[in-house]
Amino acid sequence: MNKLTVNACELCDSSAGEPLWQDELCRVVLVEDRDYPGFCRVILNRHVKEMTDLDAQARQRLMEVVFAAERALRQLLQPEKINLASLGNMTPHLHWHVIPRFADDRHFPGSVWGETRRPRVPRAVDREALRASLRKQLRAVAQ
Amino acid sequence: MNKLTVNACELCDSSAGEPLWQDELCRVVLVEDRDYPGFCRVILNRHVKEMTDLDAQARQRLMEVVFAAERALRQLLQPEKINLASLGNMTPHLHWHVIPRFADDRHFPGSVWGETRRPRVPRAVDREALRASLRKQLRAVAQ
Repeated sequence: MNKLTVNACELCDSSAGEPLWQDELCRVVLVEDRDYPGFCRVILNRHVKEMTDLDAQARQRLMEVVFAAERALRQLLQPEKINLASLGNMTPHLHWHVIPRFADDRHFPGSVWGETRRPRVPRAVDREALRASLRKQLRAVAQ
Repeated sequence: MNKLTVNACELCDSSAGEPLWQDELCRVVLVEDRDYPGFCRVILNRHVKEMTDLDAQARQRLMEVVFAAERALRQLLQPEKINLASLGNMTPHLHWHVIPRFADDRHFPGSVWGETRRPRVPRAVDREALRASLRKQLRAVAQ
């Protein structure tokens, strides 16, 4: 991965999650979050800060991968809602949170970054099924 | 606006902010938030829940408007970071938050949905300059 900064960047220095899929532009990883099984991140493979720092083609492709992840999670988990976010205040290296939300999850209907509203409800995700669903969705948007 | 639900939806029933720009697909409004001057929302003009419920053309166009808003805010305000998010847990009608973030804002580097970290720092946004900058950016992506 291309390191353009002198500071350490965890998204440059590690996969930052269990790899589910990748190409030259970006990777999809499964986040280890007991409150949010199925929480995926789509991480650019280069150290770039903002979406509008990318050229139009890379920007569009990155979003297609985000939406493929959304589709895979909807098919597999039928969540109440999908949350998409690119924040990067702490780690200014482009990454998208793709979070399946459920009416009984810890923060619903608040954001996952706010106060918890209830205890965790155990919920499992079949990683191999998610990997297969992602591959299928991403074949459909393959360049 | 097309109302497909029997429940009231504030994004169907009102402009939900000071209109800055609009076309048939969506509108950009300025959010009234004293902590976040310049906070814009890009709101779909139809009641649709998820990005992957849109067809590819509408999805791409909506994102182009989001990125045009990002560009306008970066040019006008030079924020430390732009935060982009489509959550919709409370209002499941597609809308994107486009939030200019500053190192001394109330939540930085946390999300705007988390706990505040410091008092508000007064900061103004020139609405007419923002409107003009948005128009300029959106002319560049006009269909």
